Amino acid sequence: MTGRTAYVVGAAHTPFGEAWDKSYRHLMTDAGLAAIQDAGVQGEDIDEVFVGTMSTGKLVGQEHVASLLLDGAGLADQHLPATRIEAAGASGGLAFRQGVQAIRSGAADVVVVGGLEKMTDVSDADQAAVTASGIDQEWEHFFGATDAALHALIAKRHMARYGTTREQLAAVAVKNHAHGARNPLAQFRRPITEETVLRAPPVAEPLGMFDCAPTSDGAACVVLCSDAVVDSYGGKAVQVSGSGQASDTLSLSDRADLTSWRATEHAARRAYQEAGVSVADVDVAEVHDAYTITELLAVEDLGFVKKGEGGPATVEGRTGDGGDVVVNPSGGLKARGHPVGATGIAQVCELTWHLRGTASDRQVKDARIGVAHNTGGTGATAVVHVLEGVQ
Amino acid sequence: MTGRTAYVVGAAHTPFGEAWDKSYRHLMTDAGLAAIQDAGVQGEDIDEVFVGTMSTGKLVGQEHVASLLLDGAGLADQHLPATRIEAAGASGGLAFRQGVQAIRSGAADVVVVGGLEKMTDVSDADQAAVTASGIDQEWEHFFGATDAALHALIAKRHMARYGTTREQLAAVAVKNHAHGARNPLAQFRRPITEETVLRAPPVAEPLGMFDCAPTSDGAACVVLCSDAVVDSYGGKAVQVSGSGQASDTLSLSDRADLTSWRATEHAARRAYQEAGVSVADVDVAEVHDAYTITELLAVEDLGFVKKGEGGPATVEGRTGDGGDVVVNPSGGLKARGHPVGATGIAQVCELTWHLRGTASDRQVKDARIGVAHNTGGTGATAVVHVLEGVQ
Repeated sequence: MTGRTAYVVGAAHTPFGEAWDKSYRHLMTDAGLAAIQDAGVQGEDIDEVFVGTMSTGKLVGQEHVASLLLDGAGLADQHLPATRIEAAGASGGLAFRQGVQAIRSGAADVVVVGGLEKMTDVSDADQAAVTASGIDQEWEHFFGATDAALHALIAKRHMARYGTTREQLAAVAVKNHAHGARNPLAQFRRPITEETVLRAPPVAEPLGMFDCAPTSDGAACVVLCSDAVVDSYGGKAVQVSGSGQASDTLSLSDRADLTSWRATEHAARRAYQEAGVSVADVDVAEVHDAYTITELLAVEDLGFVKKGEGGPATVEGRTGDGGDVVVNPSGGLKARGHPVGATGIAQVCELTWHLRGTASDRQVKDARIGVAHNTGGTGATAVVHVLEGVQ
Repeated sequence: MTGRTAYVVGAAHTPFGEAWDKSYRHLMTDAGLAAIQDAGVQGEDIDEVFVGTMSTGKLVGQEHVASLLLDGAGLADQHLPATRIEAAGASGGLAFRQGVQAIRSGAADVVVVGGLEKMTDVSDADQAAVTASGIDQEWEHFFGATDAALHALIAKRHMARYGTTREQLAAVAVKNHAHGARNPLAQFRRPITEETVLRAPPVAEPLGMFDCAPTSDGAACVVLCSDAVVDSYGGKAVQVSGSGQASDTLSLSDRADLTSWRATEHAARRAYQEAGVSVADVDVAEVHDAYTITELLAVEDLGFVKKGEGGPATVEGRTGDGGDVVVNPSGGLKARGHPVGATGIAQVCELTWHLRGTASDRQVKDARIGVAHNTGGTGATAVVHVLEGVQ
């Protein structure tokens, strides 16, 4: 490490959902300008821009989006470096990490990192093709496997190995919808019951419609700055004290074990070590729950609960409001929504608000240390960040 | 700057052309393993991986490719961070820059950076749609403009303003084909005459078929290391002494001037300043010649010749073999070929070979300082690196 530290000083995201009246560039401009205003930075203070987005070529017919988005924010005249990052569902988290690196490397003092996806302007079939392009095309999708089917396979294996039940999976959805009901930016803002989850149309057994995150439009943005200039940006800074990223085989067929995601384990270990925190210190976490089973894997592989105890822990409320660690107070991908590239940045927004103490009626009490966990495909990419309030 | 310096210690690329017997992942594995072998690094020494690639979603039905490529190289078990970067034609150059940043930030001591594209497995129409996704979809392509048409517009304006002639444009193609004829990895290895260029079928007036880079398959890879470990990798290191990146409006309609690319000017200024070199010091350059006009803009905006003198300078041989600065000794995008994401990395490979003095019968004599220049779309993204031999 070089001794330079990155801080989040601005955070904003659009409402997630079906934004038929907003284009891709409008969504990003909305989130970007709100984050810049939240930070109180001036356009001329910005040194570099990163954008995480998964599949703009297929969803909106446009690659090369980073410079486009700078332009949308009225910043083209500054000719800043602007870089797009992609890693399926982990695109936003990886863009955030590159923003942190730009500050740590000394290349930048103020960095804007956006994440976004505009998914609802294409057919259901095209949406499904995009989701499938995050798993292995040659070894999985070509033979008919879908992202949901592979997650169902993982769920079945977790049930067989650890006795995880259908009701325990449902408890993740019930918890996250309860959380989302208190988040004005969430796509779904209604509490649901276990019965709703269990009676929903099946997607891929054992997963039903309420076990899966929705298809969403939305954009999120954060402003990062270095320790050299953080004092200029008031008392709202949250420190990025640890960053870890890891990968695994894209295809599940090459994994030794389906029920642990090694990429999450490695990314978490690196992030905790860099931050000098232990898992017991974590107060609040935003984890990748593209499916209910994904949250169970996450809370286990991040070390919040012992391996195999994700299901019982969720039912017992240990990951809910007032629990040992509050997981997905935003509603998570499940209820806040999952505009793919935006998710990793929205996680950082949510943690920033809790660590500032400004998360309104869903505030996690005395939150001091937060963890953001973002994955791609069936866990072939994972990125974990540790954030700390500096009040 | 943090004081940490990055070095290129390994470089390789596949032959560029139509690789119908190689898949996307095979191309990358071929280049990756060759670069790792050239560097003499062991798999377990590698800390991080970046990949530049433009449109894998549309070209091969696969996003989320960085972890896939690690897997292909047999490195999945190390669970390294692996990140994909995209900026149309500048994807490779931006990936290289993120690799440099990873070293400068202290996050990594050994980084592998790949670039690739597999373009010939889809129809001509799909190839054209991919190229068009690098220009502004809403403001340009939707109204029928193509990438070639916009470059033709720029060429017309350059001709009107500076008296650039059709023959001067052709001279770029003649020079780069002559260079490519000596490059065993080039897609086109035959010298051509001015007549060939002038008589070729028109693409978008004044540009004909020989004014345009081809559609190609190919992969390139370099290994970077930090000063902390560079001594372990023998006497083949080339120093990355300057890195600059900049952007501009994606749509040409918002530019004050079509005949200068401000992003190139800004990226070059930043890179030269960081390296502490003046433009007169540059011995060899690999510049972005997706079209003949693009090389004229590049040699002007990089400062190799005065504004408007690109045409005459090319005809006079000032940018050819034995000239003031040898531009595109590899054959450039025009003759080496242009597998989009691979181009920026192949440029670094070529410079590395010249700065090591191992470029065989196309070696630029006494080459000590090289410049790599990679752009996306119609210049909305530009990235410039200064490389120096350390013998």
